Amino acid sequence: MSETKPVVGIIMGSNSDWPTMKAAARMLEDFGVPFEARVVSAHRTPDLMFEYAEAARGRGLKAIIAGAGGAAHLPGMTAALTPLPVFGVPVRSKALNGQDSLLSIVQMPGGIPVGTLAIGEPGAINAALLAAAVLALSDDDLADRLDAYRARQTASVPLFPADTE
Amino acid sequence: MSETKPVVGIIMGSNSDWPTMKAAARMLEDFGVPFEARVVSAHRTPDLMFEYAEAARGRGLKAIIAGAGGAAHLPGMTAALTPLPVFGVPVRSKALNGQDSLLSIVQMPGGIPVGTLAIGEPGAINAALLAAAVLALSDDDLADRLDAYRARQTASVPLFPADTE
Amino acid sequence: MSETKPVVGIIMGSNSDWPTMKAAARMLEDFGVPFEARVVSAHRTPDLMFEYAEAARGRGLKAIIAGAGGAAHLPGMTAALTPLPVFGVPVRSKALNGQDSLLSIVQMPGGIPVGTLAIGEPGAINAALLAAAVLALSDDDLADRLDAYRARQTASVPLFPADTE
Amino acid sequence: MSETKPVVGIIMGSNSDWPTMKAAARMLEDFGVPFEARVVSAHRTPDLMFEYAEAARGRGLKAIIAGAGGAAHLPGMTAALTPLPVFGVPVRSKALNGQDSLLSIVQMPGGIPVGTLAIGEPGAINAALLAAAVLALSDDDLADRLDAYRARQTASVPLFPADTE
Amino acid sequence: MSETKPVVGIIMGSNSDWPTMKAAARMLEDFGVPFEARVVSAHRTPDLMFEYAEAARGRGLKAIIAGAGGAAHLPGMTAALTPLPVFGVPVRSKALNGQDSLLSIVQMPGGIPVGTLAIGEPGAINAALLAAAVLALSDDDLADRLDAYRARQTASVPLFPADTE
Amino acid sequence: MSETKPVVGIIMGSNSDWPTMKAAARMLEDFGVPFEARVVSAHRTPDLMFEYAEAARGRGLKAIIAGAGGAAHLPGMTAALTPLPVFGVPVRSKALNGQDSLLSIVQMPGGIPVGTLAIGEPGAINAALLAAAVLALSDDDLADRLDAYRARQTASVPLFPADTE
Amino acid sequence: MSETKPVVGIIMGSNSDWPTMKAAARMLEDFGVPFEARVVSAHRTPDLMFEYAEAARGRGLKAIIAGAGGAAHLPGMTAALTPLPVFGVPVRSKALNGQDSLLSIVQMPGGIPVGTLAIGEPGAINAALLAAAVLALSDDDLADRLDAYRARQTASVPLFPADTE
Amino acid sequence: MSETKPVVGIIMGSNSDWPTMKAAARMLEDFGVPFEARVVSAHRTPDLMFEYAEAARGRGLKAIIAGAGGAAHLPGMTAALTPLPVFGVPVRSKALNGQDSLLSIVQMPGGIPVGTLAIGEPGAINAALLAAAVLALSDDDLADRLDAYRARQTASVPLFPADTE
Repeated sequence: MSETKPVVGIIMGSNSDWPTMKAAARMLEDFGVPFEARVVSAHRTPDLMFEYAEAARGRGLKAIIAGAGGAAHLPGMTAALTPLPVFGVPVRSKALNGQDSLLSIVQMPGGIPVGTLAIGEPGAINAALLAAAVLALSDDDLADRLDAYRARQTASVPLFPADTE
Repeated sequence: MSETKPVVGIIMGSNSDWPTMKAAARMLEDFGVPFEARVVSAHRTPDLMFEYAEAARGRGLKAIIAGAGGAAHLPGMTAALTPLPVFGVPVRSKALNGQDSLLSIVQMPGGIPVGTLAIGEPGAINAALLAAAVLALSDDDLADRLDAYRARQTASVPLFPADTE
Repeated sequence: MSETKPVVGIIMGSNSDWPTMKAAARMLEDFGVPFEARVVSAHRTPDLMFEYAEAARGRGLKAIIAGAGGAAHLPGMTAALTPLPVFGVPVRSKALNGQDSLLSIVQMPGGIPVGTLAIGEPGAINAALLAAAVLALSDDDLADRLDAYRARQTASVPLFPADTE
Repeated sequence: MSETKPVVGIIMGSNSDWPTMKAAARMLEDFGVPFEARVVSAHRTPDLMFEYAEAARGRGLKAIIAGAGGAAHLPGMTAALTPLPVFGVPVRSKALNGQDSLLSIVQMPGGIPVGTLAIGEPGAINAALLAAAVLALSDDDLADRLDAYRARQTASVPLFPADTE
Repeated sequence: MSETKPVVGIIMGSNSDWPTMKAAARMLEDFGVPFEARVVSAHRTPDLMFEYAEAARGRGLKAIIAGAGGAAHLPGMTAALTPLPVFGVPVRSKALNGQDSLLSIVQMPGGIPVGTLAIGEPGAINAALLAAAVLALSDDDLADRLDAYRARQTASVPLFPADTE
Repeated sequence: MSETKPVVGIIMGSNSDWPTMKAAARMLEDFGVPFEARVVSAHRTPDLMFEYAEAARGRGLKAIIAGAGGAAHLPGMTAALTPLPVFGVPVRSKALNGQDSLLSIVQMPGGIPVGTLAIGEPGAINAALLAAAVLALSDDDLADRLDAYRARQTASVPLFPADTE
Repeated sequence: MSETKPVVGIIMGSNSDWPTMKAAARMLEDFGVPFEARVVSAHRTPDLMFEYAEAARGRGLKAIIAGAGGAAHLPGMTAALTPLPVFGVPVRSKALNGQDSLLSIVQMPGGIPVGTLAIGEPGAINAALLAAAVLALSDDDLADRLDAYRARQTASVPLFPADTE
Repeated sequence: MSETKPVVGIIMGSNSDWPTMKAAARMLEDFGVPFEARVVSAHRTPDLMFEYAEAARGRGLKAIIAGAGGAAHLPGMTAALTPLPVFGVPVRSKALNGQDSLLSIVQMPGGIPVGTLAIGEPGAINAALLAAAVLALSDDDLADRLDAYRARQTASVPLFPADTE
């Protein structure tokens, strides 16, 4: 957890979402983006969710990353309660592999947007990258770090495939 | 709308859900169950949703029927905010025909139940019948009316199929 | 199994549904709701199913929880044979992960309702909670226990996510 | 309806299934297979369904064609109640286009078979052809008529495609 | 493999389908129905498939059970080449769990029927039972054995669920 | 239909596939690729399909475009009977919009390839383009015409979107 | 089209996406956010796509809204070519209603994010709102206009449902 | 990797696709078709993808096999950048088992074809066989080897199924 005042809030519906969502946390950490990570359940702690979402802008947050699985209501409800950009991560569910999570998050009605990423860990990584890209619009140093990350990513692709075991 | 104090609340996320949900209203009307019908949007009127759901038991409601489409969060969020039985109706959505609505409503995590009915009008009808069945547990007259409805329904099935045009 | 006269019947299509459905039994036990658990197969013991469902109200049951997988006909057929509220639990199937179970249970035609819960164990837990919520409408002590359960559930959500291994 | 004693029973869950199921009736008529067509609803007339299915063999029926839509329980329940071959036709449903009907009919557990045909009218036609094929095993005249039907069908395929309007 | 002249042909597209399809073989064995089991691949041995299917009736077969996975063409092509009743078993595929197998088998066009059973082993069991039911129409002893099987099956359902480990 | 000896065979399972498949014919015509168009049904004319596929190479065809809907067996069976490249077009089906057609065509087992294109008319167009690309490997004039087509296609994209009605 | 230098680029794969995407244009117009709308096809004008995406940041754009249908590659490829936030709109496709568009856009691998909105017009509206929310982080006037929009939206929800025809 | 100048290019979006795609490499090796295998990521190395695809024809390649998973853009983008025949292999993805990969590859718009094979290893094998079939049109020796492969494949099918463990 970063010590400076967080600008991104990572929230998740259950502690069991953490193995997925910590990929977002690590990515923000790597970019030096101050963040906080909280468990906020739309269904089990609705009052906390209201407070958290309604206070987010005032507390200085610039974006919220919300991960949830199954009937995943946290990202959409958070988006209903804050004008900040909300990015949703469909966590892989047990029976339906995240197809329910994806549809519950992405199919928001016109008026309340949730920028939705891929199911599972790739989605968590990308939510952090998207939040960083948003912040980089007014932070040239961060923009440089993002450019460098992309360059490293490109350079890391091997020319030839190889068995890795 | 019935004049006596309502015991069932029919809520829906948008006025555009009314063509579906009024089938629930008509059914309750037929059974003489006092109800109210309200537009309560999880995403556009979250404060109203909180107030409505939290006040429901105190106002004398015994069950809530909630219909919504797409990323349908109203039934589950209402269930998170009231101990009353909540019955969810997945309204048919434009692109995915209600498959998103169904999964967003039925796949609730353990701890917060939503009794989910079929997609569309049959689901609205059945939500009313299920609410009536719940009320009939302590209302013998209503139980008799439900029994009579079932008997009529059975009697209305024709013995032989026929072209109806 | 509780010793007092059961008010909820938990039925399932096969003994192999028990690992899922016993979550409903445990939950009712925790709430002190008298229940019975029975294997009643729509396909292998249709006569038993008829007898069970038709006798349910007369035996004092107030609600039935029915779990089944695949072409899951038990919840809907039970609902066709009793005026009691029936709550259906789609048990996860081998090939299709419960998508067949879910559609077979939830897509009932207008006239015969089954309040359907989530696929698998969360659905079993929630079927019990929903049955308890129905019973609590006329049992203030049970209502208090449900309120306390919800309060404990809310309190059990950790503020911060953490690796649990 | 044929005047001689029926050997095939065509049953359907609702009169609204008749536009689909009459394709089966016409096909049997063309083959001179005596049949009867009945509306038998698993959900609205469960007693009738029991009586019908349990009496079917004794009444001289050799096969049953059962069509239903949505949570389509009629074919499977009929198969549970008679040792006769049961052929199921998934009728196209409103919201899910018969995907629910198909899974509700075909995904029967081991022990109670339903031979399932395609969704909609092609399935109704084929249910009749399959029933005829079964009867033809002990009826050489019918076998000849089926062979002739197939030969005509083959001959009716045009060599070259052409716009038909 | 039974020694008497087979009346049912069990065919499958690949030896890898045998773990599924042998459930059909065992069931026929239990009922004393003479059968043969062959690997006949629509794609790798199309000539053999043609010969097999076209010779089937002449060789005295009364029904064919065909299992295949993925783009499963064996049941439908066999049905195109023989007037005998063909029952299709969708074998579970690696990537799509048999959803591709099911649709490839069941969605036959009007004119060429395949009676389709459930995905995987339950479908193999039921294909055998359905073939036996067809044969039992003109074999009273077999009909008695089928009745006895059903009675045993009903009797084997336990009254109460129990943990089995 | 072109007068010179055809090098591409367009086949389809039914005349009703022609409204889709004629887009392939037109495209080949535009490129001056000699082709023939035939109705060849895997299910209704299996002998014709065998003859056609087995004779294709000897008759000078270089590629086959096969369109079919539902349980679409024509592309795969043709591929099983000829070493020529086979390109499959999933024709949109009535109940499932071509999802069954797509899976029946694309999910071929290792050993017998079908290069599958998109559902419906775009797939028919692309099957023709792919066949042309294959022929262009040894026909420089055709390669030039394909390059010109691509250049025109690129040029035809408007810079700015506009309402077209 | 706004006259001032655009800060949001709305791109779409085809002019046929404009009926969907113009809802994004109208929304930005309402908020006074300068934007441009262009047809940029990943498949038909790949060079233009490269130029557009690579030049976007340098030209002063702050966010890109990309809409496409079917195998929708424009949003993901654009995101691969610019560090700007990219928001993807799955346009409803003919055969699969946008299910292909959605998966092609949202399931990006970790490293290259696309914030994906709902299928169709609601997604286009929300892409504009999300882009505006991003811009509002450093534009208090725009933030006020967004707050006002939300307030009006909340106020526009009727208390009671009503037939609108 | 073959030493002579490659005529087929096998490209894949990530080294993690190699366990799937090497089945294509082995198959081409067995047929003596010179090929190269490269990692070319549409999203992480878009410039390399452009260069590779645009140079492919000039370098003497005759066909490209492209494998990718999830939002799989490599096959379609490659097809947009080269007039060579492109065959796409949907690699099995983690959450959706390759359903996303399949739709992202196969649902190309009219104008830019990708001949798509089955999900996973069978698709990789078949992409190689299809490329070989294309090359065999102007290489009689290769055509003979393909014929021999098919003959061996047919001969390898066992007559009778057998347990293999």
